[in-house]
Amino acid sequence: MWFTSDNAGPAHPSVLDAVTRASTGYMSSYGSDPIMADVRARMREIFEAPEAEIFLVATGTAANVLALACLCPPWATVYCHEVAHIEEDECGAPEFYTGGAKLSLLPGLDGKIDAAALAAKIESTPTDFVHHVGRGALSLTQVTERGAVYSLDELRALCAIAKSGGIPVHLDGARFANALVSLGCSPAEMTLKAGVDAVSFGGTKNGLMGVEAVVLFDPSKAWEFERRRKRGAHLFSKHRYLSAQMQAYLADDLWLTMARDANARARRLADGLRDLPEADFLHPVDANMLFVALPRRIHDALHAAGAHYYFWPGDPAPEGPADEMLACRLVCGWSTTEAEIDAFVGVVRDAA
Amino acid sequence: MWFTSDNAGPAHPSVLDAVTRASTGYMSSYGSDPIMADVRARMREIFEAPEAEIFLVATGTAANVLALACLCPPWATVYCHEVAHIEEDECGAPEFYTGGAKLSLLPGLDGKIDAAALAAKIESTPTDFVHHVGRGALSLTQVTERGAVYSLDELRALCAIAKSGGIPVHLDGARFANALVSLGCSPAEMTLKAGVDAVSFGGTKNGLMGVEAVVLFDPSKAWEFERRRKRGAHLFSKHRYLSAQMQAYLADDLWLTMARDANARARRLADGLRDLPEADFLHPVDANMLFVALPRRIHDALHAAGAHYYFWPGDPAPEGPADEMLACRLVCGWSTTEAEIDAFVGVVRDAA
Amino acid sequence: MWFTSDNAGPAHPSVLDAVTRASTGYMSSYGSDPIMADVRARMREIFEAPEAEIFLVATGTAANVLALACLCPPWATVYCHEVAHIEEDECGAPEFYTGGAKLSLLPGLDGKIDAAALAAKIESTPTDFVHHVGRGALSLTQVTERGAVYSLDELRALCAIAKSGGIPVHLDGARFANALVSLGCSPAEMTLKAGVDAVSFGGTKNGLMGVEAVVLFDPSKAWEFERRRKRGAHLFSKHRYLSAQMQAYLADDLWLTMARDANARARRLADGLRDLPEADFLHPVDANMLFVALPRRIHDALHAAGAHYYFWPGDPAPEGPADEMLACRLVCGWSTTEAEIDAFVGVVRDAA
Amino acid sequence: MWFTSDNAGPAHPSVLDAVTRASTGYMSSYGSDPIMADVRARMREIFEAPEAEIFLVATGTAANVLALACLCPPWATVYCHEVAHIEEDECGAPEFYTGGAKLSLLPGLDGKIDAAALAAKIESTPTDFVHHVGRGALSLTQVTERGAVYSLDELRALCAIAKSGGIPVHLDGARFANALVSLGCSPAEMTLKAGVDAVSFGGTKNGLMGVEAVVLFDPSKAWEFERRRKRGAHLFSKHRYLSAQMQAYLADDLWLTMARDANARARRLADGLRDLPEADFLHPVDANMLFVALPRRIHDALHAAGAHYYFWPGDPAPEGPADEMLACRLVCGWSTTEAEIDAFVGVVRDAA
Repeated sequence: MWFTSDNAGPAHPSVLDAVTRASTGYMSSYGSDPIMADVRARMREIFEAPEAEIFLVATGTAANVLALACLCPPWATVYCHEVAHIEEDECGAPEFYTGGAKLSLLPGLDGKIDAAALAAKIESTPTDFVHHVGRGALSLTQVTERGAVYSLDELRALCAIAKSGGIPVHLDGARFANALVSLGCSPAEMTLKAGVDAVSFGGTKNGLMGVEAVVLFDPSKAWEFERRRKRGAHLFSKHRYLSAQMQAYLADDLWLTMARDANARARRLADGLRDLPEADFLHPVDANMLFVALPRRIHDALHAAGAHYYFWPGDPAPEGPADEMLACRLVCGWSTTEAEIDAFVGVVRDAA
Repeated sequence: MWFTSDNAGPAHPSVLDAVTRASTGYMSSYGSDPIMADVRARMREIFEAPEAEIFLVATGTAANVLALACLCPPWATVYCHEVAHIEEDECGAPEFYTGGAKLSLLPGLDGKIDAAALAAKIESTPTDFVHHVGRGALSLTQVTERGAVYSLDELRALCAIAKSGGIPVHLDGARFANALVSLGCSPAEMTLKAGVDAVSFGGTKNGLMGVEAVVLFDPSKAWEFERRRKRGAHLFSKHRYLSAQMQAYLADDLWLTMARDANARARRLADGLRDLPEADFLHPVDANMLFVALPRRIHDALHAAGAHYYFWPGDPAPEGPADEMLACRLVCGWSTTEAEIDAFVGVVRDAA
Repeated sequence: MWFTSDNAGPAHPSVLDAVTRASTGYMSSYGSDPIMADVRARMREIFEAPEAEIFLVATGTAANVLALACLCPPWATVYCHEVAHIEEDECGAPEFYTGGAKLSLLPGLDGKIDAAALAAKIESTPTDFVHHVGRGALSLTQVTERGAVYSLDELRALCAIAKSGGIPVHLDGARFANALVSLGCSPAEMTLKAGVDAVSFGGTKNGLMGVEAVVLFDPSKAWEFERRRKRGAHLFSKHRYLSAQMQAYLADDLWLTMARDANARARRLADGLRDLPEADFLHPVDANMLFVALPRRIHDALHAAGAHYYFWPGDPAPEGPADEMLACRLVCGWSTTEAEIDAFVGVVRDAA
Repeated sequence: MWFTSDNAGPAHPSVLDAVTRASTGYMSSYGSDPIMADVRARMREIFEAPEAEIFLVATGTAANVLALACLCPPWATVYCHEVAHIEEDECGAPEFYTGGAKLSLLPGLDGKIDAAALAAKIESTPTDFVHHVGRGALSLTQVTERGAVYSLDELRALCAIAKSGGIPVHLDGARFANALVSLGCSPAEMTLKAGVDAVSFGGTKNGLMGVEAVVLFDPSKAWEFERRRKRGAHLFSKHRYLSAQMQAYLADDLWLTMARDANARARRLADGLRDLPEADFLHPVDANMLFVALPRRIHDALHAAGAHYYFWPGDPAPEGPADEMLACRLVCGWSTTEAEIDAFVGVVRDAA
């Protein structure tokens, strides 16, 4: 019963097999391996974007901040949700990589940026006033940090606001696949066709060892991206090991299968808790994460049973009333089993 | 016959096995995995440094620049050889990570910093003059970029110069193991006991998929290093996959065995060419790299036979006299076979 | 009738005289001029801080960001009011100079940071969690950007919160003198004794041509400050021209006299408008600035009469109902005359 | 007898008068003052460049590094002389402002970049190789740091090399006027027509209190420059005080007159020493600086007589043989008098 994060589980065996298969003989370094050529072609197909440039890096933060640095000059601001990963969980990497751009934090339910707040904030950012930073880029997170998934209409509306404000759009897709299967749309619909300019296409949280793709729909930024990646120390010499993971990820829709499984587990977990009066859902369960408040005594029972997960947004006092409601985050991954879910639900229901 | 670089070969099968074995069940993220605890303990043993702090990253550049950023303030300079990797091959990553420190380039035979030049350069860098950048750190490369290995006496002398100039020493050990087995000394002798403060302990060029350790003998910089690593987007969520590689690397002296094999291949290659009047060795062959000039017609024969390697320092004109001497770099790795060496030598000797 | 800013008026004639007097013969450069020695001694007296280090720069932004860069590492955050000058009016200079630190924006009436919000925000910033930026520094603005002056009790309370959170305090005193005479306290009471660690001591808005002092009560940061100042290109070769301005500023309490005059003009202006039902004061008038809403028709009359000032926070639509209330900012300086005030009030009252 | 630097003397009285005259009444801030409009027009005339954008800053370092940051991306290198001010005397400000670009140091007599060395260095900098930094900009210094003046032919040749290498040219003209009158050409001939793209047009060393202009012949970089200037904290609120100095500088060719005077004094000084067997001239005296070696006993006599100047490149041991030759730098400014020169020469000749 391990629900701390979708980065706590292992990589998929097919991924390890692919890596092992790729580990034979000599191969060109630094991204000129033949596997990468295949990955590039496949990604362009998937995104219906024959001109797009595709790059691999090993961490989600690297994908986000390298993309943002190409979209936002140092004297501008990135509009993002106040709980966005780039704000909360990257220790200032966006500021470091952009050369000191700002992040302008926006409110919104369930980790989704409120459209009116975005429009107002962009509107109030002057474009020709040297004293204030300018408009840089919009960064959306799909799945949001609170487990919700923007609808295509919501994405389109936010992108349209950015576009009418003259700025490009970045999509932090650390959980891209989970969002995609939740919406049941195509990758292009969720990105290029909605108005997104650059995508962090996550793999690590969905069954890879550590690979994320960056998709730049505008190839004119490709060389700058390459320079920034190298300079950020994110260009791998034995790049084949990144390529092979991504190739396996995309083959036979493994990525979609894993995301569907993770989402199904989260749904099963939500279904198991939904009707309990003791369980208070804080956000919709659109993908593979639940945010739910439970009485302290249920948490105690779960911990006694060996469950792992995080209180959210932080640890409560160690002691308190048994019926004190304490919120937690529960994340399912591709490897979460139905048995784990049922065991967890069983503990909760017994303690309820 | 592939001698382009020691990053063109595959990882060792034991490393892949270890990675596969580690890929089971749930594990804490971001370096708190139990495998890392074991790696840390083992590294401290190997370096005879119970206080040392150990960090893993995935690229050699990341190891170098994160270490340097902890040693050198933005308003100081890093003394390094004029062909050092940090100067020639990292696209300004040291400048980016240090916040704009300088690199002061020093001459010296075979990629080794000339001690008198270092002493003079440090001496001429004022410490209390606000207009000029100050003294930052010395960065040594062992094996050097020209295939030579500093003797312990040479290392001690350079470190002593740095110390008497008041600055710490970084060792770029992308080929640490190759140097170590060449010298036949202990890791501590080649680092801590010689006066080195921080080590980039390479694994990628010696049989790993992509892992380097940073060893900080002074643990007071550990938290700053962690901040810089995260902020540089080099902290892996599924850190176990780095840990497992390094654990396998250190187990049963695999790292030393692979380095010995690579060095032995280079020696065999050198021995095969040594007595040829057509072969002009440019640098000593102390580890796993050769720099040798050969007549154009021999290169033509090699290329026709399918050999891969780089002209050095750059490509010559496509056409020229048959006896024109053209320099090249030949790098052996753990996976280079004696058969490859012998085939290569055979082509050369046939064409000579 | 020019109320756009206290930087729109001229320097005081005594300042120009001093500059002219200093412009004779040769003098050591870069701050080693004898006038600076006198300024340093005088500032230490004024602040009752014999150990303090004093530096001169030419812009308020330079003073703020050089001080902040010495107090806050790149991986931390500066707590400031959401309308602070460092957030709104410096085009990202704090991010540039700190190497990419964040600014955490806090609410509060009249430009004053709400103490509870500060305490909560610091509390919620983890100190040992590598993913999130850490606690950097508190930056207070006195006079606030909304014309209010923190009481000594308020300052002490905010500094105490910072101190108990383990962080130093910076005071943006672009209008230091206006605040000081408003409070009627000593410089030490408003800074060192309240818990402030570094002060941007403004002169430009109060009768100088362009000089601000930075006061570092902790001299251990002095060399770092000097390095950052030089590296930021803010070390003046003909430093005597900064020194002379500051010397004249401090002589015979000229700085206090000018601030008292500016504040008195603002009070006279406020008194002239206070009883008008058409004038809606948005913030207290504690120093030399008024924020007041007036009907559009009164603005029209003022503009027709040649008054200069800014609508606040931005320009309204060019046309609208005559009784539409439009807010503006009115700033008085040392050179604002009673006649200007009375003329302005006259126009308003005539149009009311 | 004060020959330390041309920044040790006072500003010209006309400049102080202009500043005093400008110090009346209210004026728009931040460069929109009417005096700046006049300066801009006059500079465009002088440079025969109606499209050029003109900016004022207060230090030469600011002018240099803001210009370079607009010309050179972070992942490229600035080619400059190994004794260039940007390398030796700005404490890493170019690295800071460019976001970590490199400086590639070139040799050459008398502080002039050797053309062949430049061509070779640019040639060896790859443009499409991600591992190495790219070609950024050429920065020339006129007058050089060793007192020499590039001829127009030399300037054109170096600019042509830069252009054929695909990079723009910056001219550090801290002593622009001294070079111009030395060459007897027009400002356009020494810059735009020779191939220069951006000029640091110095005033501080030639009779101003502290003002330098940046001339960007390509106006497309103007907004970026403004952003960088503001963000670097170099945008003055009471900008009139910069404008007024520059206006006075350009009026009635004051700048040329002052430069002619300074150069004439240097020539007189050189003439006074030239025929002495004890005086060894190290560099040509093309403008207002001499580099000359003299026996220690003559230095002793000069110091006893109250002369101020710097040994060069650094202080010698305090004691030594009386006939030991010690090099020094002697700089004349607009305010250096013939009497000072003659007194200095008299001491030398008496001691010779």
